[in-house]
Amino acid sequence: MAEAPIDFRMLAGAGVPARDYKPGDVIFREGDAAAELFIIQSGEVEIRLGNRVLEKLPQYSIFGEMALIDAAPRSASAVAASDVKLVPVSEKQFLFLIGNTPHFALNVMRVMARRLRTTNKSL
Amino acid sequence: MAEAPIDFRMLAGAGVPARDYKPGDVIFREGDAAAELFIIQSGEVEIRLGNRVLEKLPQYSIFGEMALIDAAPRSASAVAASDVKLVPVSEKQFLFLIGNTPHFALNVMRVMARRLRTTNKSL
Repeated sequence: MAEAPIDFRMLAGAGVPARDYKPGDVIFREGDAAAELFIIQSGEVEIRLGNRVLEKLPQYSIFGEMALIDAAPRSASAVAASDVKLVPVSEKQFLFLIGNTPHFALNVMRVMARRLRTTNKSL
Repeated sequence: MAEAPIDFRMLAGAGVPARDYKPGDVIFREGDAAAELFIIQSGEVEIRLGNRVLEKLPQYSIFGEMALIDAAPRSASAVAASDVKLVPVSEKQFLFLIGNTPHFALNVMRVMARRLRTTNKSL
């Protein structure tokens, strides 16, 4: 990815409580039911479809938003690619952010647009 | 597509001024600069990548939102698949809608999530 990542650090600063993962830990699996999305406070996360790595996400990235948006199972798996700290955002918090911070909504759309462009290119 | 389309008719009712297209008319081409998105007031539109039809969109669908979101060129082409009436939404109107109607923002995200799931399945 040549482009700078879209940065959600405003939601995942150093003081925000986070969950710890070790390299190789599965954060969620394709097909799982979903209740939250995540922001990477530190470390890197791989998004995988079967054996294929779709994306490697750096610090302050967001992931897991799709299943919250359309209330469907996880469309891919997420695996810790290093020591990782993740800030979970519940569906309720997510809807609050969408409703109250248009900038957040637009940034989520930017992430999705970028993913769509990437997958379209590999079609 | 078995799922019901996400419906943007609130922005494209019968009284809203629309542009007319004939079957085969190119609405925009992959690589074009973008200034607006569209809602289908009547008719059907094909989204094409090269010779491949990615999607055939029914009445009240939205398309062309990606290029507004990330200020990049059109990622695919859009072609009228019938007599079509389109309601254009400018970037300014789009940003206003995102900021003032969280339901609109979520519905745009739902459309994008669905497209991502569809393209992921064809990877």
